[in-house]
Amino acid sequence: MSDGKYGAFLTFEGIDGSGKSTQARRLADALRQSGHDVLLTREPGGSPGAEEIRSLLLHGEPDRWSAETELLMFTAARRDHVERTIQPALEAGKVVICDRFVDSTRVYQGITRGDLRAKVDTLHALMIGLEADLSFLIDINPNIALARATRRIGAEARFESFGIELQATLRAGFLNLANRSRRFRVIAGNRSEDEVHADVARIAETWLGPNG
Amino acid sequence: MSDGKYGAFLTFEGIDGSGKSTQARRLADALRQSGHDVLLTREPGGSPGAEEIRSLLLHGEPDRWSAETELLMFTAARRDHVERTIQPALEAGKVVICDRFVDSTRVYQGITRGDLRAKVDTLHALMIGLEADLSFLIDINPNIALARATRRIGAEARFESFGIELQATLRAGFLNLANRSRRFRVIAGNRSEDEVHADVARIAETWLGPNG
Ligand SMILES: Nc1ncnc2c1ncn2[C@@H]1O[C@H](COP(=O)(O)OP(=O)(O)O)[C@@H](O)[C@H]1O
Ligand SMILES: Nc1ncnc2c1ncn2[C@@H]1O[C@H](COP(=O)(O)OP(=O)(O)O)[C@@H](O)[C@H]1O
Ligand SMILES: [Mg+2]
Ligand SMILES: [Mg+2]
Repeated sequence: MSDGKYGAFLTFEGIDGSGKSTQARRLADALRQSGHDVLLTREPGGSPGAEEIRSLLLHGEPDRWSAETELLMFTAARRDHVERTIQPALEAGKVVICDRFVDSTRVYQGITRGDLRAKVDTLHALMIGLEADLSFLIDINPNIALARATRRIGAEARFESFGIELQATLRAGFLNLANRSRRFRVIAGNRSEDEVHADVARIAETWLGPNG
Repeated sequence: MSDGKYGAFLTFEGIDGSGKSTQARRLADALRQSGHDVLLTREPGGSPGAEEIRSLLLHGEPDRWSAETELLMFTAARRDHVERTIQPALEAGKVVICDRFVDSTRVYQGITRGDLRAKVDTLHALMIGLEADLSFLIDINPNIALARATRRIGAEARFESFGIELQATLRAGFLNLANRSRRFRVIAGNRSEDEVHADVARIAETWLGPNG
């Protein structure tokens, strides 16, 4: 992929515990095996500047920043991540795999502050522009995701702070988004890691086409 | 002004050394003398959150953040300043005097990154909205402003880093903006403090109308 060809931008989306990080890692390994030059990255974070903005957002009182100020800072962090990490890799012809991207912001804002939902899209179009070429939505029943997540340190608290009902609403939000966009592939997440991976890898390899 | 009446938002704009901070302070004093409830604030800064965003922007290498990321963070800082400081004061019926506001961003971005100029307006309209009711542009020849600024510690370096030609371009940018908006009053800055103040105070008092 060093023949000047532009890369491809793949994202994983879904609720907490659906298996995004697991599948992103496994897809990265599989694509490397078949000769692709792969960059695996994630949000929030993905570049030093984005991490610093995030840590500024997280310290202090919970109501320290309004939803609007937070959205501007998340967009600043994403802009930095895209400029410093994602875009250079795409220009070098790499396959970039990102664990969560703007669709997570769309769904979370749509749920928690519905009136900001349109602003997320406008801000993204104005200041970032980049959309994934192919997005995997790992779809799963929140009860199953919760059972998995409780096996991870710290994850239960985070999941619980949203609550199972909110997770169900987020799931519906992701499905709704996926149904309105051709770049999404909805993957049934309530299966073994290997089964999920087989689907994801087959779709990605087909979409990317023969390598070299 | 505690009878439920909405306040008034006055801003001072102009190049470095034009006399904004001096005149903002003097106007605040004069309006307080005539019985107005006044809040004097400034940009950059004006709220604890805005100051923290600013200090994140300023530390590290000069090219650490792109112009787009910076613009998003400046807008986040301004949103915080408006929400936490300016808007509550306006709702309490105060006269808010702000030393620089979005017009400075418009002019500086318009000069340094002309392609971002339209984005400044779109971002401001989308995420902030508030515009001054009355804006004073202290207009001055950059050579005179420089002579003044060199009397301030640190100011010369900052002025010089832009250079006299860029200051002349900024001056033209401010005048251009002022000529296209009814809320601006252009004040000749190359006069004594007292003379400039007399003009500013007369215009502000007339605009605000009788108090109480
Ligand atoms: N298909 C699967 N079946 C059972 N457990 C899984 C499966 N995929 C991932 N897990 C486990 O569930 C937890 C959450 O997976 P993770 O990939 O971190 O999800 P996410 O990144 O979407 O929050 C982890 O402990 C992971 O090992
Ligand atoms: N009308 C004036 N004539 C002479 N010096 C002035 C006048 N107004 C302000 N100064 C001085 O010029 C310098 C810059 O003024 P300042 O109000 O800080 O400008 P700005 O805030 O626009 O950068 C200060 O040292 C100030 O005391
Ligand atoms: Mg994860
Ligand atoms: Mg000043």
